[in-house]
Amino acid sequence: METVLLTGFEPFQGEALNPSWEIARTLSGETVANRFRIVAKRLPTAFSTAADELYSAIENARPRAIICLGEAGGRTQLTPERVAVNIIDARIPDNAGAQPQDEPIAHDGPVGYFSLLPLRSMVDAIRAAGAPAEISDTAGTFVCNYVFYKLLHHIHTYNLPITGGFLHVPYMTEQVLMKKAPGLPLDLMAKGVRAAVEAVVQSFPERPTLMC
Amino acid sequence: METVLLTGFEPFQGEALNPSWEIARTLSGETVANRFRIVAKRLPTAFSTAADELYSAIENARPRAIICLGEAGGRTQLTPERVAVNIIDARIPDNAGAQPQDEPIAHDGPVGYFSLLPLRSMVDAIRAAGAPAEISDTAGTFVCNYVFYKLLHHIHTYNLPITGGFLHVPYMTEQVLMKKAPGLPLDLMAKGVRAAVEAVVQSFPERPTLMC
Amino acid sequence: METVLLTGFEPFQGEALNPSWEIARTLSGETVANRFRIVAKRLPTAFSTAADELYSAIENARPRAIICLGEAGGRTQLTPERVAVNIIDARIPDNAGAQPQDEPIAHDGPVGYFSLLPLRSMVDAIRAAGAPAEISDTAGTFVCNYVFYKLLHHIHTYNLPITGGFLHVPYMTEQVLMKKAPGLPLDLMAKGVRAAVEAVVQSFPERPTLMC
Amino acid sequence: METVLLTGFEPFQGEALNPSWEIARTLSGETVANRFRIVAKRLPTAFSTAADELYSAIENARPRAIICLGEAGGRTQLTPERVAVNIIDARIPDNAGAQPQDEPIAHDGPVGYFSLLPLRSMVDAIRAAGAPAEISDTAGTFVCNYVFYKLLHHIHTYNLPITGGFLHVPYMTEQVLMKKAPGLPLDLMAKGVRAAVEAVVQSFPERPTLMC
Repeated sequence: METVLLTGFEPFQGEALNPSWEIARTLSGETVANRFRIVAKRLPTAFSTAADELYSAIENARPRAIICLGEAGGRTQLTPERVAVNIIDARIPDNAGAQPQDEPIAHDGPVGYFSLLPLRSMVDAIRAAGAPAEISDTAGTFVCNYVFYKLLHHIHTYNLPITGGFLHVPYMTEQVLMKKAPGLPLDLMAKGVRAAVEAVVQSFPERPTLMC
Repeated sequence: METVLLTGFEPFQGEALNPSWEIARTLSGETVANRFRIVAKRLPTAFSTAADELYSAIENARPRAIICLGEAGGRTQLTPERVAVNIIDARIPDNAGAQPQDEPIAHDGPVGYFSLLPLRSMVDAIRAAGAPAEISDTAGTFVCNYVFYKLLHHIHTYNLPITGGFLHVPYMTEQVLMKKAPGLPLDLMAKGVRAAVEAVVQSFPERPTLMC
Repeated sequence: METVLLTGFEPFQGEALNPSWEIARTLSGETVANRFRIVAKRLPTAFSTAADELYSAIENARPRAIICLGEAGGRTQLTPERVAVNIIDARIPDNAGAQPQDEPIAHDGPVGYFSLLPLRSMVDAIRAAGAPAEISDTAGTFVCNYVFYKLLHHIHTYNLPITGGFLHVPYMTEQVLMKKAPGLPLDLMAKGVRAAVEAVVQSFPERPTLMC
Repeated sequence: METVLLTGFEPFQGEALNPSWEIARTLSGETVANRFRIVAKRLPTAFSTAADELYSAIENARPRAIICLGEAGGRTQLTPERVAVNIIDARIPDNAGAQPQDEPIAHDGPVGYFSLLPLRSMVDAIRAAGAPAEISDTAGTFVCNYVFYKLLHHIHTYNLPITGGFLHVPYMTEQVLMKKAPGLPLDLMAKGVRAAVEAVVQSFPERPTLMC
């Protein structure tokens, strides 16, 4: 069975949990479209180690598709990201204490990479599953955009047969019980991401039927 | 069995549904604390008829407690309202086309009434049920505040043994699938309101046990 | 010459300035409508002392009108407040370290007082002066609402011939140079408040012309 | 005397004015750093004509630097844009009625171009001039990003000696007198943009002093 890799991040900025990882591990082990198994991997929220852990996960899972998930506190919708940009500009320190400003991610890399995911059909599928969704035009300049860019740079550099991209999610309701910020429950977000994964695998070209 | 009356409003401002009514009818018929049955009533979003329909519902249900629910599009939390104010100032027409500006609700009434509901324990109960909650300091100046004020004016005028108040809720996710506004799913909001009703009935003084 | 008293608050919550006081002292000494002089008074942002300082200022200035100004960080408009509510519920400590929760301001006082100011014409005047304005339906439950309520309670209790009320203002641009919150420049807000004062004094009934 | 070209857009989406053009024409004709004259040019808010009008303005003005200004209603700060992205995705029709979705701007162009402007020193200069500022990570996917991308594509394609980029501005206060959206006065925004222009020309390498 082929695999779809879902990554999430460890908590940061004092939060007790990160919805991106809660969603990924909720969906871990599920089968999609009868032929894909979801594999979940937690990444550190740190520039120094996140990319290497992503590469290891890719080597281990050898996935047909990758959706990296990240927390976008303050957003109200599940937002597939359109473009990864070759820049780091951290407004807070990452979990290892690093806070680079206005630095390129890859000195030899292009300004940006477009997501390889079928954004529009993911948005439609998430909405059909009952969760709010919209394409986002910026993944920020912190560890999320960094992992997004590194993923696409890796795929393009080694010409890997992987459909990859990034999807930001709002806070979980558990995180906003006492603060005035929008949140969505885990089960609804997991439902939305599952629908997005289905949209991704349905976008793959049909394999030729072998007659015998 | 005693009753708790939950009211909700019909949709307004072009929306296809009103979460306040969806929640009320979801909980309709449920039993709370083994001795209260929830009765739901839909009110028109119109100054001319909402209060009379509320009074009829009170006469029919003879409730021990009333929580009027209303939609507060843009809010992120379930918000028990602290105070009803003797003013109508409609920024949009109601469903009957009326749009009064800066008019008192009751010429003989006080400036405001405090909610009779146990606000703090409702907030705690809603959070414990997993939904975001906070006390709100304004119910606005549209039909919600009007019904809230009329309810309390009615209770005080006739000295009714009813614990009453108002609770605003955010949009339902169905309403915000395609717009950048916060929303919560119906089941989570219903869970939160159920917990709030339980907090209300638990706040009633114990009735003396009759020995025989 | 008669006087109009403008009060502002000292800075709180770590801010270096409070726009309400900056505006009041900018307008201090100005003459309005040829017969009113503006007197400015700074109040402490503390429940224990704010009201007494307000009463002293009233005794000293013997004003015909009072507009208490306060900072409402996050708002985008100058907002005359409609109603003062008999409640203290402090989400942060005041400048003296006090943080009362759910306490009445005056045990013998009514639930609310409506502002005595001509709200609608103030809003019109502020807009005509080029600043955004709207009536607000809540002054919160911190020191601003406290002073607003105490002012009206004082006026009503002693039947003082004073037209009084409250007006909240946004952050000054100096406060938001580096944060994502709306702000307005001091000169524009001072212009708006001056126009509001003019609207207030123009709302006074004409004094009879004495013929001799 | 060398020139700096400032472009602004015509009003769109029912607005009576566009702050980007109001700022540009306010600064038109001013001299900066004793050797640059500001030339202002208004661009149509339309995909079909905006780029050609920009190219003509470049040919006429032969500027050393170009800052294209655009309106970002809802933002609170002046925001130099970091990156132009090769995509059009219009959520509303432009002024010519066109509303392309998910289309590339240049079939032969790269995914993105970084601004050539000194973003960080522009932000510092705007703040020093008293206006709120921050680097923005997305110029959207409407006519603003389109013009930004086309400008940089033109500069790179023809290897023009021009330092160019984009800066988004909030609503003008005139646009928000009656709505709950942040706005800044024209004179403050013009002051901020003037400071940004100065930061741009100060970033140019010194020309060698000719001795004789």
